Amino acid sequence: MATTLISGGTVVNAIGTGAADVLIDGEKIAAVLQPGSTLLGHDLAASVDTVVDATGKYVIPGGIDAHTHMQMPFGGTEASDTFETGTRAAAIGGTTSIVDFVVQYPDENILDRYQAWHDKAAGQCAIDYGFHQILSDVQDSSLTAMDELIAEGVTSFKLFMAYEGVFLSDDGQILRAFQKGADNGAMMMMHAENGAIIDVLVQQALARGETSPYFHGTTRPWQAEEEATHRAIMLADLTGAPLYVVHVSAKQAVEQIAEARDRGLNVFGETCPQYLYLSLEDQLGASSAEWGDFEGAKWVCSTPLRSKHEGHQHHMWQSLRTNDIQMVSTDHCPFCMKDQKELGVGDFSKIPNGIGSVEHRMDLMYQGVVTGQITLPRWVELTSTTPARMFGMYGQKGVIQPGADGDVVVYDPNGHTSIGIGEGRSHHMNMDYSAWEGYEIDGRVDTVLSRGRVVVDAGGYIGDKGHGRYIKRGLSQYLV
Amino acid sequence: MATTLISGGTVVNAIGTGAADVLIDGEKIAAVLQPGSTLLGHDLAASVDTVVDATGKYVIPGGIDAHTHMQMPFGGTEASDTFETGTRAAAIGGTTSIVDFVVQYPDENILDRYQAWHDKAAGQCAIDYGFHQILSDVQDSSLTAMDELIAEGVTSFKLFMAYEGVFLSDDGQILRAFQKGADNGAMMMMHAENGAIIDVLVQQALARGETSPYFHGTTRPWQAEEEATHRAIMLADLTGAPLYVVHVSAKQAVEQIAEARDRGLNVFGETCPQYLYLSLEDQLGASSAEWGDFEGAKWVCSTPLRSKHEGHQHHMWQSLRTNDIQMVSTDHCPFCMKDQKELGVGDFSKIPNGIGSVEHRMDLMYQGVVTGQITLPRWVELTSTTPARMFGMYGQKGVIQPGADGDVVVYDPNGHTSIGIGEGRSHHMNMDYSAWEGYEIDGRVDTVLSRGRVVVDAGGYIGDKGHGRYIKRGLSQYLV
Amino acid sequence: MATTLISGGTVVNAIGTGAADVLIDGEKIAAVLQPGSTLLGHDLAASVDTVVDATGKYVIPGGIDAHTHMQMPFGGTEASDTFETGTRAAAIGGTTSIVDFVVQYPDENILDRYQAWHDKAAGQCAIDYGFHQILSDVQDSSLTAMDELIAEGVTSFKLFMAYEGVFLSDDGQILRAFQKGADNGAMMMMHAENGAIIDVLVQQALARGETSPYFHGTTRPWQAEEEATHRAIMLADLTGAPLYVVHVSAKQAVEQIAEARDRGLNVFGETCPQYLYLSLEDQLGASSAEWGDFEGAKWVCSTPLRSKHEGHQHHMWQSLRTNDIQMVSTDHCPFCMKDQKELGVGDFSKIPNGIGSVEHRMDLMYQGVVTGQITLPRWVELTSTTPARMFGMYGQKGVIQPGADGDVVVYDPNGHTSIGIGEGRSHHMNMDYSAWEGYEIDGRVDTVLSRGRVVVDAGGYIGDKGHGRYIKRGLSQYLV
Amino acid sequence: MATTLISGGTVVNAIGTGAADVLIDGEKIAAVLQPGSTLLGHDLAASVDTVVDATGKYVIPGGIDAHTHMQMPFGGTEASDTFETGTRAAAIGGTTSIVDFVVQYPDENILDRYQAWHDKAAGQCAIDYGFHQILSDVQDSSLTAMDELIAEGVTSFKLFMAYEGVFLSDDGQILRAFQKGADNGAMMMMHAENGAIIDVLVQQALARGETSPYFHGTTRPWQAEEEATHRAIMLADLTGAPLYVVHVSAKQAVEQIAEARDRGLNVFGETCPQYLYLSLEDQLGASSAEWGDFEGAKWVCSTPLRSKHEGHQHHMWQSLRTNDIQMVSTDHCPFCMKDQKELGVGDFSKIPNGIGSVEHRMDLMYQGVVTGQITLPRWVELTSTTPARMFGMYGQKGVIQPGADGDVVVYDPNGHTSIGIGEGRSHHMNMDYSAWEGYEIDGRVDTVLSRGRVVVDAGGYIGDKGHGRYIKRGLSQYLV
Repeated sequence: MATTLISGGTVVNAIGTGAADVLIDGEKIAAVLQPGSTLLGHDLAASVDTVVDATGKYVIPGGIDAHTHMQMPFGGTEASDTFETGTRAAAIGGTTSIVDFVVQYPDENILDRYQAWHDKAAGQCAIDYGFHQILSDVQDSSLTAMDELIAEGVTSFKLFMAYEGVFLSDDGQILRAFQKGADNGAMMMMHAENGAIIDVLVQQALARGETSPYFHGTTRPWQAEEEATHRAIMLADLTGAPLYVVHVSAKQAVEQIAEARDRGLNVFGETCPQYLYLSLEDQLGASSAEWGDFEGAKWVCSTPLRSKHEGHQHHMWQSLRTNDIQMVSTDHCPFCMKDQKELGVGDFSKIPNGIGSVEHRMDLMYQGVVTGQITLPRWVELTSTTPARMFGMYGQKGVIQPGADGDVVVYDPNGHTSIGIGEGRSHHMNMDYSAWEGYEIDGRVDTVLSRGRVVVDAGGYIGDKGHGRYIKRGLSQYLV
Repeated sequence: MATTLISGGTVVNAIGTGAADVLIDGEKIAAVLQPGSTLLGHDLAASVDTVVDATGKYVIPGGIDAHTHMQMPFGGTEASDTFETGTRAAAIGGTTSIVDFVVQYPDENILDRYQAWHDKAAGQCAIDYGFHQILSDVQDSSLTAMDELIAEGVTSFKLFMAYEGVFLSDDGQILRAFQKGADNGAMMMMHAENGAIIDVLVQQALARGETSPYFHGTTRPWQAEEEATHRAIMLADLTGAPLYVVHVSAKQAVEQIAEARDRGLNVFGETCPQYLYLSLEDQLGASSAEWGDFEGAKWVCSTPLRSKHEGHQHHMWQSLRTNDIQMVSTDHCPFCMKDQKELGVGDFSKIPNGIGSVEHRMDLMYQGVVTGQITLPRWVELTSTTPARMFGMYGQKGVIQPGADGDVVVYDPNGHTSIGIGEGRSHHMNMDYSAWEGYEIDGRVDTVLSRGRVVVDAGGYIGDKGHGRYIKRGLSQYLV
Repeated sequence: MATTLISGGTVVNAIGTGAADVLIDGEKIAAVLQPGSTLLGHDLAASVDTVVDATGKYVIPGGIDAHTHMQMPFGGTEASDTFETGTRAAAIGGTTSIVDFVVQYPDENILDRYQAWHDKAAGQCAIDYGFHQILSDVQDSSLTAMDELIAEGVTSFKLFMAYEGVFLSDDGQILRAFQKGADNGAMMMMHAENGAIIDVLVQQALARGETSPYFHGTTRPWQAEEEATHRAIMLADLTGAPLYVVHVSAKQAVEQIAEARDRGLNVFGETCPQYLYLSLEDQLGASSAEWGDFEGAKWVCSTPLRSKHEGHQHHMWQSLRTNDIQMVSTDHCPFCMKDQKELGVGDFSKIPNGIGSVEHRMDLMYQGVVTGQITLPRWVELTSTTPARMFGMYGQKGVIQPGADGDVVVYDPNGHTSIGIGEGRSHHMNMDYSAWEGYEIDGRVDTVLSRGRVVVDAGGYIGDKGHGRYIKRGLSQYLV
Repeated sequence: MATTLISGGTVVNAIGTGAADVLIDGEKIAAVLQPGSTLLGHDLAASVDTVVDATGKYVIPGGIDAHTHMQMPFGGTEASDTFETGTRAAAIGGTTSIVDFVVQYPDENILDRYQAWHDKAAGQCAIDYGFHQILSDVQDSSLTAMDELIAEGVTSFKLFMAYEGVFLSDDGQILRAFQKGADNGAMMMMHAENGAIIDVLVQQALARGETSPYFHGTTRPWQAEEEATHRAIMLADLTGAPLYVVHVSAKQAVEQIAEARDRGLNVFGETCPQYLYLSLEDQLGASSAEWGDFEGAKWVCSTPLRSKHEGHQHHMWQSLRTNDIQMVSTDHCPFCMKDQKELGVGDFSKIPNGIGSVEHRMDLMYQGVVTGQITLPRWVELTSTTPARMFGMYGQKGVIQPGADGDVVVYDPNGHTSIGIGEGRSHHMNMDYSAWEGYEIDGRVDTVLSRGRVVVDAGGYIGDKGHGRYIKRGLSQYLV
C-alpha cells in the first residue's frame, strides 16, 4: 500500500487550526504529526512513497455533499449529471463524498429502488458515495424496509410535503414514518413546502398569464416554507424523531428551526449556496421584459430563490454563524437548458427544478471565509465535519485524525478560481450553462486525495471512474 | 526531554471519538497515531521513555477551569485554598489549567494587582495558570491598563453589577469598558446580578429577622439575575463588545443569552456544577427549623442556588445540550465553616460567598454523561475545548493534537469516585467540609499529565509545587 | 308598543360600570339615564308600562353565544337540542342571541343548506339567532355563494382541518376560501386540529385496545391543535383574510395566536367554559378502571379537554385577561348518553363529539368574576360585546345604548345558581345528563328581556316559541 | 343649572359608534337618547336651554392628556405654557382634562410640592386638571407621602431612570417605590432611559465636537430605552406593581412591553404624536450642514425622535392597533426658541427637552383615522377612555354616559385644520414656533363642553380662566 505525507500545511478542523503533517498509509490516515517530517528521530519523508508539499496551504478533510441527485428521473427527463460526471466534478471541487437520494415513486418497491441506485453508481464514481432513501409512499412495507435499509447503511429518509402525486406524503404518513424514525434512530429529512398551497398559486398564476420563470418564485412564498417547516417540527415534537430540513431558504423557516432548537429538540437545517448568494431578482436578469425572459429558468429550483428585499440572505449567513443552520449542501440537481429546462417555455411549472453546484460548494463557502462571513474552522464544519456527524460517517469521514479515510483536500488561499463556462473559467459538470457564471473565488482546490489516492493534482483530475466506493453509514452522531 | 506514549485508549475530543495513541515529546504532543504503537514500521513503544496503558479508558485534553479564586481576599477573610493547595486538588481532579481572577478593589492600581497575583502564584502551582483581571474601578487609567494587560496575556476582564463599594461598576463605567473591549478585542466578563435590588432585599429580610443562610437565596431572586443579564447584553449590543456571563444560574437568564445569540451577538454563558445539581432547598438540609440552620452556609454562593420548584436545573442541562450555555467552570471560591463561613452566624449577608469544586468538576460533569444529559464529546467541549477557545488558549490547550501542550487526562469509565471528607472518600481542597459530600461518580481520574509530565498516577498526586507555569493567553478564538 | 324602565341598577358595559336607568321603548333601547327615573322633570316611571327594579343588581347586554349547533346532524345522530329547546335554555341562562352553524356536507349545495336551517329555526326560537356557514366543499360555486350569503347576513364561514370525508378542507381549498374572505371581508373561522395526525393516532389507539372515552383526549394531542392553528395563521398571513379560531383549548395554540396578533394580524381566538374549568383527568371520574369507564363520554368534545398537568387552564384564564383570547362561546353541541353517546361504547371514536353549555355560559363566566379571574366589564366584553363586534351585530346587539335592541339581562350578584339535574338544581337543555353537574354559581340570572320583551322573570321562563328573529349580520366590526 | 342637548350627532365611544342625542343637565350628562330630541312624547329640545346641532359630526368624550408639564422648572428655565395658556390651548384642541406632573427635586418635600402645584393651577385653568407626582428622592418619607397623596387623588407616581442628580432614582429606590405601589395600588410611571449610558455618550459626543441638536438623538440610542424598559418591567414583575412606561419611542421597547403583557403582567405603554409622525432625520431639516443647524432644537425631546430607517414609526402605529401601546399623550413640555432652546447653542445637552403638542393631539390622532391607521372608536379609546381608566377617572371622565361629567367634543369630519403659526394656521400655545408647522388635518374641533359649559364654539375659545377644577382621581381601573 502506498504511503503519502502531506507536509508543511495548516490543518483546519471544525474547532480550530494547527500546523501539522498528515501521514496516510494506504487508504487511511495513520498519523497527524508535528511539522518537520520526523518523529522520534525517524525521517518520515524519506519513508513514504509520496510527499505532498502543503506549505502555505490549508489541509482539510474532504468535502461531503450530503444532498445530490445524480441522473435523477424527474419531470419527464433526468438530471444531466451521471454518477460518473457528477462525482468527477465534485472531486475537482474538493468534495470527496456525496450522499445521493434513492428515489421511490408511489407504488414502487423501496428495496428495488435501493438496488437500482447501486446499479447506477457502481463502478462509475470518482469518489465515495452513500445513499439517502426517499419515501414517497409510506405503507407498512415502507416502514419495514426502513429497518432493512438501516442495516444496509442507509440511515436517513426523506419525505416531501409538496409535489402531490409524485413525492408528497400526507401528515398521517409523515407521522407514521416519524414514529418509525423515533424508534429505529433514523434521521428524518423533510422537503418542507406546503404543496397544496403552491399548487393553487401556480394554477392561479398561469391562469393570469404569468408564465415566465420568475413566477416560479412568487408562487412558492415564504409562508409555504415556514408553514411546512413548523408542521414538520411539530411532528418531530410529537414523535420524538430527529428532523433534518433540507434546502432551507426563508429566514422565517430558520426562525422556526432556531426556536425548536432552543427548546432542545433534535431539529436541524441545511442550506445551499444558492440561498446565500442568489436572489429571486437575479431571475429577471438583464431582460427588458418586466417579468424577465426564459433565461431565468437557469435558477428555477425548489425551495426557490428568495427576494433580496426581504433580508433572507443576510439572515442565512448569520444562521451559519449562530449554528441555527448546521450544514451547507448543494441540492445538486442539474438540467441543461436545451431540451430540459426548455420543457417549461411558456409554462414555468414545467421547468425541471434544480441547480448544479456540486463542483463549486467548497469554493463558494470558502469565499464566505474571505469576506468574513464565517471562520476557517466553521467552513470545514459546515461542509465536511457536520455532514459526517449528521449522517453517521464521522470517524471515517469528516475529520483529519488517525483511522479516518485518507480523504484530504489541500486548499490554496493564494490561488484563484473563476467559475463558469467561458474562456479561462472552470466548469466540469454535465450542464450547458453555469448557474454561477462569473463568480470569482479567492482560493483554489489544489490537491485532492480520496481514500489515500491523489485524484486531483494541481487542480487537474487524475482519478479513475470506479475508484469511489459505497459508504455504509451508521446512525447520526449529531443528536443531543 | 522525556517521551511518553499513551497507548490503547479512546481519544475523545469536542467533536467525536477515535481509537488512537498519543505521543508526547517533552512538553508537547508530538503525534496522534493509529493504535498499535508502530508507525511505518517503527516501534514507537520501544522508542519512548514511558508507556501509559490507556486500554479501555478515555484519553482527553486536560480540564480547564476558567473561573477560580485562589486565596482571594473577600469579606474580611481570604479564600482558603492557596495556589498550592487549590491547583493540587485541581490536578487530582483532572484539571490541568486554571484561569484565576486578579482582584482590583476601588482605588487600587490594576497593574500592581496583576503583579501581586503573579507573586502569589509563582512557584506554587501544580498545573498551568492564567489570569483574568477584575475591574472594580473603571477610570481612564484602567482602560489604558487593559491594553497593557492584553500584551501580558490577560485578555479578559470582569465587571460586576453587584457588590456596591467593593466591585460594582455603574452602567456608564461598564459602557466605557465595553467600548474598550470592542476596540481591543478583549472578552468582557460579567457578574450579572442587580446589586442595588439585592441590597434592598437583604436589608429588608434582615429587618424581618430572616437571618439564616436560606435567605441568601431568597434575597437574590431570578429577576435580579435576568435583569442584569439583559442589561449587559444591551451594552454588548450597543458597543459591539463580546460578552461572557459568569455563573449563570437562572433559566430566565439563559433565555436572555439564547435570544441574544439567535440575533447573532457574541454573547456567551458559563454555568457551574452547583447550578446543575444543587438547589435552594438543599440549604434547608434536614434541619427542623423552618428556614434551616447554619449548615446551609456551606452552599452560600452568588449567584445563589435556585429553587427546585422553578425548573432551573432541567433547563440548565438542556442549555448545555443546545449550546445556549457554552462552558462549565467552578467559580471555585472556598471558605471553611470555622472562622470563615461562621462570620455570618446570625446574619447571612456576612457569610463569605463561595463553594469549592475545583477538584470535582471533571467528575461531576462526567456523571452527566453517565446519566445521559450530555455526550462524551460534549463533556470535553464544555470542560476543556471551549474554555481554551473562549479565552485564547486553543492550540496550546484544550485539544489533543500535535503541537499542543501535553496536558492529558486518562479517565477510567470503569473506575469510581466517592466525593467527600468521610472514610474512603476523596477531598483534597483546603476546606473543612465538602459541598459535594456523598456524591458518587461512575468514573475516575486515572492519570494526569501536565505539559508532558505525569502529575497524577493511578489517582495519586505525584507532581511538584512549582511545575505550573503562567499561560500567556491570546484573544478569544470563539467569536463568530 | 310597550315601554319598560329598568331602574336602580348598575349598568355594566365592556369598558366600565355606572349607575343608570335603562328605558326601552318597544323593541329598542330608547335611553340610558341618570338614576332616579326622572328626566328634566318628567316622571319616567309613571310614563312606562313596566318598571323592572334592578336595585343592587347588574344590568348587562344580553349574552351572545356565537357558537352553537342546534339539532345538528353528526355521526349518525343529531344534536339533542332543537332550536326550540336550545334557545329556551339559552334565554333562561341570560343569553339573548345565538349564532348557529349551517352545515354543508360534501356535494351539498350551500344555499340549499342555508335555506334548510332557516326552515328549522323559523318560528321555533325563544331569542334571536343568526347563522354562520360551514364550508365542507370549497368549489367555485361555494366561493360565489359566499358573496350571496353575505348579502343575506351570513358573514362568517367555518372551515375544518379535521374530519376527513366529512368536513375537512385541504390547504389548497382553505387558501381559496381565505382569498375570497380577504376580498369580500368575511370572517374566516377555523376548526384547527390536524385531522390526518389524529386519524392515525386514533387507529393506533384502538388497535392497542385503548377504547374508553379517555383516549379521545390522548389521541388529539396539543401538537395537533398548535400545528393547525399555526397553519391557519400562515394562510391568513398569506391571503390577508381575518381568521377566527374556534374552541381553542391548548396553551400552545394560544401562544401562536398571541404571536400573530403581536405582528398585527387580524387573528382571533375563542375558548369555551369547558377549557376553563374541566380537564382530561375529569374523564376518568371516580372509576376504578385505570383509563376510566364510559361515564367519560359525557365530556367527549373536540378540541378535547386538556391534561391538568400541562398548565392549559391557568394560561387560558390569563389569555382572557390579556385579550390574547377575545371571546367565550360554548360550542354547544348536546348529545344524550342514551342512544347517542352510547354509540361509542367500546370505541371512543364513535362517540358523538360535544358538550351542552348554552344555558350556563353566562353563569360560569360570572363565577370567574367572583374568583377574581376577570373583571365585571371583561365578563360583559367576553360574552356579549366582543361577540357582537366580531360578528357584525354591534349597535344592534352587545351594548346598552340608545338604538340597540332591548336585549338586557338583570343579573343578581346576591343570588345563587346550582347547576345540574339533581333536586333543586337547574338544567333546561334537552340532555339526559349535565356536563356541569355540581357546579355552584354565586350569582343568578334574574330577568331577561329579548327585544324589549321580558322572557325570563325571577329566573322563570315566560317567553314564547317564535319570538326570536333572524339576525341579518354585517361584516366584522372588530378588525384592526 | 343650564341644560344642553347635543342633537343629531354620531356618538363615538371606545367600542363603537351610534346615532344618539346627549342631554347635559348642569355639569353632568343626564341621558343618552335615541335621536329625535323626544322621549316618551316629551319634547326635550324645547325643554333645554341650549341645543347644539351635531348633525354630520362626531360626538366624543373630551380628550384627556395624561402627560403635561405646564410651567415646569427644568434646565434653568421654565416650560413656557402656564396653566392658563396651556389649558386654553388644550381646550381649543378638544382636550378637556390634563394630568400634570408635580415635580419633586432631591431634598424637596413631596407634600409641599403638591401644594405648590395646586397654588400654580388654582384659578388659572380652562379645563379640569389632575396631578401625577414625580418622585426624585425615594426615602421613607416619600413612601409615606404616597399614601397621603392617594387620599388626595394623586394615584400615580413617576420615577426616572435618567437625569442623574435631578430626577434619577437608583434601582434600589425604584424597588422600594414599586413595593409601595404594589401595596397601595398606585400606578408606577417610568421614564425608561438608561441615564448612566446616555451621560457617557453625551460627554463623548461633545468631546468629539458633535454639538448640534441632531446629536441629542444619536446619544440616546434605542438600546438605552429598551434596556431601561426591560429593567422596569423586571422590577414590576418582582414586586407586583403595575407599571406605566411614558413616551415610548423605540420599537424594541414596545416589544418588551408586548412580551410582558403576553405574560399577564400589568404593564402599559404610552406614546406621543411626535413618535408617530416625526423622525430623527427631521432634525436635520433643510440645513446644508451635514449634521443640521440649530433649527433642530425645536424637536429636542426625551425620549428622542428615532431614525426613520429603523422602522419605529410603522411599528408604533401597529402597536396602537394591537393594544401593545394603550394610550397617546403629548408629554407637552413647551419651550420657546428664543432664550430657552437657545441655551443649548453650541451644546445640544443644554437644550431644554420638550415639544409642545397639547393643542394638537386630538387632531393629529384623528388624522390617523383618516389615513386608516386606527378606527374611530380606537381614536376615542387612545385619547380619552383609556387615559380615564388608566388613571382612575373613568365614569367621571372618558365616556359619554349618564352621570359622567359633561366633557364633550363635537368634532367635524368635514372641517379642516392647518397647524402652525403662519397665516391662516392655528396655534395657541405660548411658544414662538410650532413643532407641527405645516401639518394639515382633515377634520376640526367644532364645539367643546367642559363640565356642561360650552368653552369652544365654532372653533373659537369662549371659556373662562378658573373654570377648570382639580380632579381627585381614584386608583387605576385598567388593571387586569
